[in-house]
Amino acid sequence: MSRTRVHNFSISLDGFATGEPQTLETPFGHAGQRLHRWMMATRFWDENGSDGIDNAFAQRHSEGIGAEIMGAHKFGPPGWQDDPEWRGWWGDNPPFHTPTFVLTHRPRPDLVMDGGTTFRFLSTGPAEALGIAREAAGGLDVRIGGGPSMLRDFLAAGLVDHLHLVVVPIILGRGVRLWDGLEGVEADYDVETVASPSGVTHLTFTRRSAQ
Amino acid sequence: MSRTRVHNFSISLDGFATGEPQTLETPFGHAGQRLHRWMMATRFWDENGSDGIDNAFAQRHSEGIGAEIMGAHKFGPPGWQDDPEWRGWWGDNPPFHTPTFVLTHRPRPDLVMDGGTTFRFLSTGPAEALGIAREAAGGLDVRIGGGPSMLRDFLAAGLVDHLHLVVVPIILGRGVRLWDGLEGVEADYDVETVASPSGVTHLTFTRRSAQ
Repeated sequence: MSRTRVHNFSISLDGFATGEPQTLETPFGHAGQRLHRWMMATRFWDENGSDGIDNAFAQRHSEGIGAEIMGAHKFGPPGWQDDPEWRGWWGDNPPFHTPTFVLTHRPRPDLVMDGGTTFRFLSTGPAEALGIAREAAGGLDVRIGGGPSMLRDFLAAGLVDHLHLVVVPIILGRGVRLWDGLEGVEADYDVETVASPSGVTHLTFTRRSAQ
Repeated sequence: MSRTRVHNFSISLDGFATGEPQTLETPFGHAGQRLHRWMMATRFWDENGSDGIDNAFAQRHSEGIGAEIMGAHKFGPPGWQDDPEWRGWWGDNPPFHTPTFVLTHRPRPDLVMDGGTTFRFLSTGPAEALGIAREAAGGLDVRIGGGPSMLRDFLAAGLVDHLHLVVVPIILGRGVRLWDGLEGVEADYDVETVASPSGVTHLTFTRRSAQ
């Protein structure tokens, strides 16, 4: 059965998935690269990177994924909807390699990129977007790509089957929190936790009914 | 050198150290015992309890401690200052066994309890309270007892040398947060993280200059 999965979603110890402000130069605000340094040090990201526990988790990002859904804040900085030339942060060959659905109130025509990524723009809610992405995924899983606001919506709607979360031991103090409005969400999941020698902690939330 | 230490300080994955509301019946609000179940399952708490990693951390609570400082919210429910008979939550023999300083704007006479605990009431700020507690500790360490508001004050003032934090994988959603106003506080500490088979994660923050 096609599942919805989240991978490599990194938050600070105080629960922020991004700092502030988000701009073209600082996609994660004052957090800079601190939330994702663990991932950039792995073989998944860099062929000379580490090949231990961090990489084992990181590389799951792509395995068995047939489509991604991302929020508007992940696709570009504030105001990208006003720039008809904006094609995402990732250059000509984005690291998705599947149909990739961008949730936005101002949809635009499909963007066909190199390497198999096609950005498609939807102005629907989470459940309808998931139906469309599932169909595009052709029986494979759908990755819920974030950022935090859209992930929160999908979690609140019960639409996430597997969540891989990475807690980085820094106190960001400000930004966008993941957990707001999600009291008790862990009740639907089996949760496992493991600390990595790199200093981050990996948590997996696996929906009981979807195992 | 006498250090200031925090032990067994438990927070939810979303950063709350207590739920709400705090009442006589529910000292941790809607969190109930969920933040401290890991500790109550150890030999430190229960002679038939576990004797692994959780207990190794838990029992450090008492080792080498000569005094504790706690906040008013730890000593009693809202309004305890209006009850001249209130003697804390812990019965005749509280688990402190040292001079124990309670920070409150309405001090009262010392309370001599069984087992070596004497509650003394101070209306000072963190630094002055620490000076008084250090003297009472006779060269031993001073435990910073919490709750979250007073711990936050001590962390912000740079008065914590060692912090043992326990992250419990639940989303409380509301209550009192530990981290507010503490952006970047980790920069002064060496941080280690280890996951326990019980499901909680232990973090230690050890001040670099105090090692």
